[in-house]
Amino acid sequence: MAQPTRYDLLVLPRTYDRITCSIARTMEVLGDRWTLLVVRNALVGMTRFDDFQQSLGIAPNVLADRLTRLCAEGVLQRRQYSERPVRHDYVPTEKGRELWPLLAAMVTWGDAYYAPDGPPRLLLHGECGGPVVGQLTCTSCRSSVPPEDIITGPGPGARPAVAA
Amino acid sequence: MAQPTRYDLLVLPRTYDRITCSIARTMEVLGDRWTLLVVRNALVGMTRFDDFQQSLGIAPNVLADRLTRLCAEGVLQRRQYSERPVRHDYVPTEKGRELWPLLAAMVTWGDAYYAPDGPPRLLLHGECGGPVVGQLTCTSCRSSVPPEDIITGPGPGARPAVAA
Repeated sequence: MAQPTRYDLLVLPRTYDRITCSIARTMEVLGDRWTLLVVRNALVGMTRFDDFQQSLGIAPNVLADRLTRLCAEGVLQRRQYSERPVRHDYVPTEKGRELWPLLAAMVTWGDAYYAPDGPPRLLLHGECGGPVVGQLTCTSCRSSVPPEDIITGPGPGARPAVAA
Repeated sequence: MAQPTRYDLLVLPRTYDRITCSIARTMEVLGDRWTLLVVRNALVGMTRFDDFQQSLGIAPNVLADRLTRLCAEGVLQRRQYSERPVRHDYVPTEKGRELWPLLAAMVTWGDAYYAPDGPPRLLLHGECGGPVVGQLTCTSCRSSVPPEDIITGPGPGARPAVAA
């Protein structure tokens, strides 16, 4: 069974949160609603500026800024798809594709609580057609982990002051 | 194997995104960095206003606003823990605890790309002590699903214009 979590380990100077918490860092990269919606569309195969713009109803300058940022962070890659005229589009990198579990977890939670008419969009397993969810999995025993059975503590990247 | 995804299904009026996309809806509730950090701390056991404030270095009025919002959304619950003086703290609801997979997915991605010294914080399976990650799982065949094997399409909550 789960031991009690030790939240006292989290009472840290705010610089800790800013610098090494992986959630904070992820939110710095993605923590803007447009950014995540751009990533979502890119992951299902959208590549062109005009398609993003039309689909999201986003201002062109805001979209350009988010795409540039996502390329700088290595989430998307700018690719030339036409020579005459020279045209570029945007495709997810491996780092970008690895955001699928995060987006799937958002879909799973949003579907559970904010989709009274049922899920607006299905994520399906290509191989068997079954529904895909973002889930907690133990990489050691391979079982699905219920939230109440998670314990947390400082890892190797924690600062000495944290582990003390 | 995965069929090609059909991103044309995503080229929809922006109202669609606003109203029924579960990612957009989730971001409306959580899409603010402070909110997610408050949820993170609450999930590892933090309950008191002063502890959130000290840990995050967040302005009291901003913290109060985020806590009120999270209670209104049913993610946290306000609980009286002392009679004299009357004092309240904040505990996660079941809906709040179900955000663990989302936070775990953020940790997994952030650890992979933004933790050069190793993960600052470990999420462990209480039962066996193994590392827990947010992962894509097929609820039908129970296997772990690689991102490239996801297909997506409109679900029962999609609007008629979408399914057409």
